[in-house]
Amino acid sequence: MTEGKTEGTSEGMTEGMNEVKPERALIESAEILTVGTELLMGQILNTNAKFFAEELSRLGISSFYQTTCGDNPERLKGALRTALGRSDCVIVSGGLGPTEDDISMACAAEVAGLPLRFNAEEAAKIEAYFERIGRRATASNLKQAYLPAGARVLSNDNGTAPGCILRFAFEDRERHIVLLPGPPDENRPMFRDAVRAYLSAAARWRIKNIFVRLIGIGESSAEARVRDLLDAGPGLSLAPYASTGEVMFRISERYLPEERPVGAERLLAAFRERLGEYIYEVGQRKMPQVLAELLADRGLTLALAESCTAGLLSDALGAIAGASRFFLGSVVSYSNAAKLELLDVSRATLARAGAVSRACVEEMALGCRRRFGSDFSCAVSGLAGPDGGSEEKPVGTVYIAVAGPGGLRSEPFRFNGSRRKIQQQACLNALNLLRLEVLRLGAD
Amino acid sequence: MTEGKTEGTSEGMTEGMNEVKPERALIESAEILTVGTELLMGQILNTNAKFFAEELSRLGISSFYQTTCGDNPERLKGALRTALGRSDCVIVSGGLGPTEDDISMACAAEVAGLPLRFNAEEAAKIEAYFERIGRRATASNLKQAYLPAGARVLSNDNGTAPGCILRFAFEDRERHIVLLPGPPDENRPMFRDAVRAYLSAAARWRIKNIFVRLIGIGESSAEARVRDLLDAGPGLSLAPYASTGEVMFRISERYLPEERPVGAERLLAAFRERLGEYIYEVGQRKMPQVLAELLADRGLTLALAESCTAGLLSDALGAIAGASRFFLGSVVSYSNAAKLELLDVSRATLARAGAVSRACVEEMALGCRRRFGSDFSCAVSGLAGPDGGSEEKPVGTVYIAVAGPGGLRSEPFRFNGSRRKIQQQACLNALNLLRLEVLRLGAD
Repeated sequence: MTEGKTEGTSEGMTEGMNEVKPERALIESAEILTVGTELLMGQILNTNAKFFAEELSRLGISSFYQTTCGDNPERLKGALRTALGRSDCVIVSGGLGPTEDDISMACAAEVAGLPLRFNAEEAAKIEAYFERIGRRATASNLKQAYLPAGARVLSNDNGTAPGCILRFAFEDRERHIVLLPGPPDENRPMFRDAVRAYLSAAARWRIKNIFVRLIGIGESSAEARVRDLLDAGPGLSLAPYASTGEVMFRISERYLPEERPVGAERLLAAFRERLGEYIYEVGQRKMPQVLAELLADRGLTLALAESCTAGLLSDALGAIAGASRFFLGSVVSYSNAAKLELLDVSRATLARAGAVSRACVEEMALGCRRRFGSDFSCAVSGLAGPDGGSEEKPVGTVYIAVAGPGGLRSEPFRFNGSRRKIQQQACLNALNLLRLEVLRLGAD
Repeated sequence: MTEGKTEGTSEGMTEGMNEVKPERALIESAEILTVGTELLMGQILNTNAKFFAEELSRLGISSFYQTTCGDNPERLKGALRTALGRSDCVIVSGGLGPTEDDISMACAAEVAGLPLRFNAEEAAKIEAYFERIGRRATASNLKQAYLPAGARVLSNDNGTAPGCILRFAFEDRERHIVLLPGPPDENRPMFRDAVRAYLSAAARWRIKNIFVRLIGIGESSAEARVRDLLDAGPGLSLAPYASTGEVMFRISERYLPEERPVGAERLLAAFRERLGEYIYEVGQRKMPQVLAELLADRGLTLALAESCTAGLLSDALGAIAGASRFFLGSVVSYSNAAKLELLDVSRATLARAGAVSRACVEEMALGCRRRFGSDFSCAVSGLAGPDGGSEEKPVGTVYIAVAGPGGLRSEPFRFNGSRRKIQQQACLNALNLLRLEVLRLGAD
């Protein structure tokens, strides 16, 4: 494709309205170039790189490099040329702001050999934005309306910087640059609304992904049970997927647009045969969300009594929009006095068995359910450390109890790791015990 | 410096005991190369790049690039050569494991022109490690004991893979490669224990950093007040530093080893004159830690009553080791019934003013303090959204009250952003109100 065609004139399109219709088999590989001094200084985590990488992976587009550089034009153009020399597409994020330092658009245009052109439509949007907030757009704000000729414009509904997609010839090969702003709350919607579909249509392969989430089994034990499925054949893969505090697998099937994917579902069936009892979700919902929907769907209410998790469990549910539909509240009974006063744990139990005991956690759960008048309650007590462990009850000892219409159930656990990791594991297992009890209720 | 010297033999050292003593002014720039398919697939966040970048920044070593690549030998060696062509030092993390796929050490040795040699001391450590866990080290485990000739070995106290520092000539210039394992709980201690001192000694510049944390003022307002200080003169800088939910500045002074830094303290004094009233910390402690130490030092206790934060505030304190010294517990009163039953809020107040009101949050704080018998209590009630807002009380309306020996104080807030951001801002401001009340107690 020539530069003339990229500008779209030979296909009767006007600049800025360039509806590039990718032919098949254009993009096999893409790499990520994140631009920002704050990344080089280590001030922020590169969540953009992770987001784009995950998207590319799901689209079946290979990605072999990620690069971060600052707002120096020579270094940025050099990084762009290096990337274009080895990948079909470069996803650039950052450096689209209004200041002198924001040079990504100009550098990309130069490397792609496309002149910058004033885009009246985007300029009007920028002026309207400033009118809404009671200010006037300055010349530097309007700089953001200059876009490479023939670019496919990506509107930004959450900020002033438009993004764009460039398609051009570089060293005689067709290449693509996707330019997006740096702020996640601007680039994520733009990617989801427009870039994903563009890349999906341009990708050589289609990908079907199925995520399976497990609880109650460790990663290595789970892997051991499905080892023979890991090499599932050409285009089909089963792989453990790192996820904090739980075990997740991704089943992935690569196929051509004219094919129908069937392998992923077949592999899922085989996976279920081996590990079905540990699967709590086939999809993207995490444990708090799964429990929240289970409770809300059945019109059931929940209250919590936390000791060693000290609010983490409540927060896991309280962070969910609409939590008030099922979540009545909690008592964080860090002190023994709070266990006596607010949860009606008996002095005798505390004296005999101690606060970290099955007896105590059961009384906490019963007291909590009574006090809040909830359908279900869950209580957690344990030693998160780093101090306070003994030979009999080392740091990591945690008891969890669930009280509900079907009665009382409790379990002892022993977790490893830091204070935070122990709290997180306790939280995840408490949610799971609750989930199982709610499901059991329906089954009775 | 020749390769012979790098191996240390001309200075009478044996391989593996090579105590390279960097002369002055060796390292001005360094870049970061993270190795791992899980990064390219977007499975994990690149926290390593952020950690190393922040360390380099604090050491006064310029860093213009970060690269991520996978475990393909040609791509990895290419990335290493590119990095060595433009930076004095390359920090490599990942790919030091025992499997076939772990090729970072071999690739670095090849690029540096140093042969791999068996290191008996490290091999013994690996064998001892496996003996401790009741297994025998295999040949692939012992692969990790092969290190480039003349390497300065970095012991790994938290895993089996040793790291190392290489110093060698590349294209006639002296270059350094620091090789570290991928897991953060292995590479962080190695960096802190050995690499930081090595780089600090080799860095051309020394850096003195002072971090200042503010609350109660927005980033742009704070910047406006110190704009004339931002360009503080050669070697001296004041810069806002991105940090979730709060405003932070870094004062940084670059100086030569033979100089004495004086500018940073002078700049801090000027900063204090402008913004002193908003400073809650000069140093690295975040708000929960600051409050926790304040309470623990004075032997004061705290209880919490949370509505819209639903556990987040409790968790902020509960996550701190030793929280039991001051934290008695909380009531998460998500339902009105819980406010009545567990916090003694009056029915009349709920009926008249509603749950999201100054009157309600004050009664929550007083009830909480009485129930737990704590010195201080703090209550939060508001609308975190996304639903439930009204014209009078839009989403983001939050009331916070603190009760203590000095009486009751409450404040209304209006926060912007997502549900999570509203919860986080409410949490931060609740901690700050508590901090101010505790300080006021001492001042009375």
